[in-house]
Amino acid sequence: MRTHYCGLVDEALIGQTVTLCGWVDVARNLGGLCFVDLRDHEGIVQIVAEPSDAEGNAEVLATAAHLHYEDCLRVTGVVRARHAINDRIRTGKVEVVATRIEVLNKAEPLPFHAHENPGEDIRLKYRYLDLRRPEMQRMMRTRIRLVQALRRWLDARGFQDIETPILTKATPEGARDFLVPARMHPGEFYALPQSPQLFKQILMMAGFDRYYQIARCFRDEALRADRQLEFTQLDMEFAWVSERDVQDTVEAMIRDVFREVIGVELADPFPRMTYAEAMRRFGSDKPDLRIVLELTDIAELVKGCEFKVFADWANAADGRVVALRAPGGAQFSRKQIDDYAAYAARFGAKGLAWMKVEDAAKGREGISSPIAKFLDDATLDAILRATHANTGDAIFFGAASYKVASDFMGALRLKLGKDLGLVEDGWKPLWVTDFPMFEWDEEAGRFVALHHPFTAPAVDDIDDLRANAATAVSRGYDMVLNGNEIGGGSIRIHRSDMQSAVFDLLGIGREEAELKFGFLLEALRYGAPPHGGIAFGIDRIAALMAGTESIRDVIAFPKTTTAQCLMTGAPSPIPDEQLAEVHVQVRPKT
Amino acid sequence: MRTHYCGLVDEALIGQTVTLCGWVDVARNLGGLCFVDLRDHEGIVQIVAEPSDAEGNAEVLATAAHLHYEDCLRVTGVVRARHAINDRIRTGKVEVVATRIEVLNKAEPLPFHAHENPGEDIRLKYRYLDLRRPEMQRMMRTRIRLVQALRRWLDARGFQDIETPILTKATPEGARDFLVPARMHPGEFYALPQSPQLFKQILMMAGFDRYYQIARCFRDEALRADRQLEFTQLDMEFAWVSERDVQDTVEAMIRDVFREVIGVELADPFPRMTYAEAMRRFGSDKPDLRIVLELTDIAELVKGCEFKVFADWANAADGRVVALRAPGGAQFSRKQIDDYAAYAARFGAKGLAWMKVEDAAKGREGISSPIAKFLDDATLDAILRATHANTGDAIFFGAASYKVASDFMGALRLKLGKDLGLVEDGWKPLWVTDFPMFEWDEEAGRFVALHHPFTAPAVDDIDDLRANAATAVSRGYDMVLNGNEIGGGSIRIHRSDMQSAVFDLLGIGREEAELKFGFLLEALRYGAPPHGGIAFGIDRIAALMAGTESIRDVIAFPKTTTAQCLMTGAPSPIPDEQLAEVHVQVRPKT
Repeated sequence: MRTHYCGLVDEALIGQTVTLCGWVDVARNLGGLCFVDLRDHEGIVQIVAEPSDAEGNAEVLATAAHLHYEDCLRVTGVVRARHAINDRIRTGKVEVVATRIEVLNKAEPLPFHAHENPGEDIRLKYRYLDLRRPEMQRMMRTRIRLVQALRRWLDARGFQDIETPILTKATPEGARDFLVPARMHPGEFYALPQSPQLFKQILMMAGFDRYYQIARCFRDEALRADRQLEFTQLDMEFAWVSERDVQDTVEAMIRDVFREVIGVELADPFPRMTYAEAMRRFGSDKPDLRIVLELTDIAELVKGCEFKVFADWANAADGRVVALRAPGGAQFSRKQIDDYAAYAARFGAKGLAWMKVEDAAKGREGISSPIAKFLDDATLDAILRATHANTGDAIFFGAASYKVASDFMGALRLKLGKDLGLVEDGWKPLWVTDFPMFEWDEEAGRFVALHHPFTAPAVDDIDDLRANAATAVSRGYDMVLNGNEIGGGSIRIHRSDMQSAVFDLLGIGREEAELKFGFLLEALRYGAPPHGGIAFGIDRIAALMAGTESIRDVIAFPKTTTAQCLMTGAPSPIPDEQLAEVHVQVRPKT
Repeated sequence: MRTHYCGLVDEALIGQTVTLCGWVDVARNLGGLCFVDLRDHEGIVQIVAEPSDAEGNAEVLATAAHLHYEDCLRVTGVVRARHAINDRIRTGKVEVVATRIEVLNKAEPLPFHAHENPGEDIRLKYRYLDLRRPEMQRMMRTRIRLVQALRRWLDARGFQDIETPILTKATPEGARDFLVPARMHPGEFYALPQSPQLFKQILMMAGFDRYYQIARCFRDEALRADRQLEFTQLDMEFAWVSERDVQDTVEAMIRDVFREVIGVELADPFPRMTYAEAMRRFGSDKPDLRIVLELTDIAELVKGCEFKVFADWANAADGRVVALRAPGGAQFSRKQIDDYAAYAARFGAKGLAWMKVEDAAKGREGISSPIAKFLDDATLDAILRATHANTGDAIFFGAASYKVASDFMGALRLKLGKDLGLVEDGWKPLWVTDFPMFEWDEEAGRFVALHHPFTAPAVDDIDDLRANAATAVSRGYDMVLNGNEIGGGSIRIHRSDMQSAVFDLLGIGREEAELKFGFLLEALRYGAPPHGGIAFGIDRIAALMAGTESIRDVIAFPKTTTAQCLMTGAPSPIPDEQLAEVHVQVRPKT
């Protein structure tokens, strides 16, 4: 239907007749002379309808005079050089003098037009109009190029793209499953996969060696600000490997893909950090290394101090007392400090002690703080030295259990970094390794898996693992970029006895394990090779590359935070007869 | 963990030390001398454990003496030339003399081993063992290469790979939807997509120009012999195109991909045939052109004959009387003919008239047939001439409504072709075009869409379509290969008024249309471009390329015909508390 794309008409075509298809981006009628910006996915070109002796000219002028935003056109015309060059667009040196304008489809008055950026609900309802905007096209295209680059990289290296089922078996761990009633099996259900984890492990046992899949995964969780019910991961698994084989391979892949898609050169090699170090220095297992601020442990300095909260947590076995210097923070108003305390409270803080260093040379006299009176001079001095605090700085203090103190001080570190303009430009990837195997769930009174129950422990000996479960380290690893966990993986358990022991430690009884993971335990008995892998969050990586905060900008048809598709109206009620066919009914409200 | 793949060890490595990982394919202990065939995804190599002075030799021999099928090993050894060359395997000129054998994982006695081909239920339950078989590896690899080749082809031509939602809105047409209860919206449900049809059309309206996706689709239908609940299609859509743009592009793609993946050169161009011609000559809209037999219409010859069934249907407005020559069929026994009649009955035949031509030169005397007595000499002669029947042939006759007669005679044609060895080798692709827009559903008393309700009619004029709905032709097209519909598509309706008119003709009321397709009708009002596309069945194409009848051979984890995954045990019962969270309950049996 066309000879060229609008956005690619250039000086080489001057004098030639072209046929273009696209939408009316802007139409100006100057009375007998009309200008139309015609837009397709490649860009915009200016169409001119002007009086001439040519046959059909009257019709061209009449059509051009009555165009509206987003009318869908086919235009034939002659390319000529433009008098008023427009440097902002690629086609800005030329224009097309129309000899024929065909309106393929009129557009009614729009709910909003392409130059606006209305509320997200409107954008999602009229997603087809929203996606026409060049900025959305750019972001979506970044995602498309990311996935293309990943596939090309993996295909070239012998990874095999294998599809795993979407209708599968319910699993008990982690987030909640979506359930699908089975018509042929009354009272039974399929579940949508939270990830292809077990299938990819089975593929290694099936002899596939190196697997990948751009896999759709599903989690029926309340949607946080930036979670979707369904999301996409690059899922990978390798047979006969150790941690470094996996890490070195995918690190090279990520580096190559960032270079190819957005021209960014990531560190080579990525820095590496244990979980313990990340928590200690940054209060997070996904530290944003663009922010140079670090936490300082001061428990040793305040064990004997009179400030009870500090002394108690400093002496508690699982306590942590930690300080964070805020450069220039002596300028904070009382209100600002209260706001930071409120912010820390959202992450579990019961209170947030602080200190302003108004003049470091003056000792206690130069310090403004509600808690200074509980600390002796030597302690005050030691704190300033430990935190490298100087005149003009503030110091915030967290005292709580190790986990809680780390969480809220880690969150405060990010917030201060942003507020104080201390986020460096650029890209800071790293590996976080040596995660704990288990976390103790106080409420449930049992261990839960920090990665997932198929992650191998660092020790090979089952008795050793049982005896030291609380401190056991796993063979899991995360890839972190600018404070986002973009990938997570592990070496898996490949022995049936070890897998049973781990289920046991996680409080998954023999019967339950057999019922839910029987096929895995059985498969491990028939010569399962050592194997491991990783999964990357495609939505998040695409958003980072596209420079947007919201993954919804890189998903063609995202759902809202209330799990709805505003365009199609999903979810929706279903007639009872249709539910009867799949043997379920809506539960009466209780 | 290894230096080389087992299947790739060759003479270039003679004298070198290699480390290999794999499974014990066969282990033979000849008393102090052991041979092990070690297998990985690339193939098999022979390992030798023999007495020597080397350190650790006793351990190597002891380990080698106690190996079993599918034990998982790491072997280090020296490559040497083999005395008894094995020509059947790639590594047959070498062997590896083991200096170290590490058992990474023992295998328990197997339910079956890799050299057997047990019943499909056992294969599906122990899918990981089944997939280790080289034949399964070969078939799965064919699929992987097919998808890779398609993607590479499309990426190189600017098609954009865009994901569409899996959790979407229930649609009313075609096969049944899988339903997913929505936790955040009590009493409401998502549906799994039967195809991304509407999303891809919306993407064209959103300015994406050329889209593709290797898309998972879902149909909750009773599983026929060779259908899966979930299946994979290459889904494509183009903006600003006509039929030939789509057809020429994808025809070139299929030709290139067949050449690349299995070295087959398909016809260039593909033959083209209208729906009417395909039904007339082959009784099928997906004719297998490898079979040269064709149907012969004889209604004109039997309109006045005494055989009432023939005469009635020959004179009926929608009747068809059709003959099919079976070369050499004069040899059929009575039992064989009865079997063919029973076969035709499965496709709707009420009876199957026949004629054996024992001697064509003898006229009526040379013909053996229960119906010959109802036909005069001229008619008999005319039938022989029309069907080109000769001495030794049989002729089968179908008389029924056009559709029923075509169906069972088309099926009989395929069966006879196979039974008589008249299926040519090779690959016979074609396009079938000019489908009817609607079929009249006698039971429902209304039209149904032959493709789907978004397919454009050949006429642009709504009044014309309304006036001639029964004979209206659509802009749909199918790609057929060796009797399989491997792809189907159409130019879509891009005007809101035409879409409403088609819904209307299909008996979808205004309110229902608004409720279910309101977003489509609305999107068509804002400058929707002309667009069209196609979808290819990846499972079927992969099976054809791999040379297997069953698509289950090219799906890693298929379900049975009773919709179960025998490996994981899906579907399965779900505790009532978990159902309560998504606001449904199992329906009591009635």
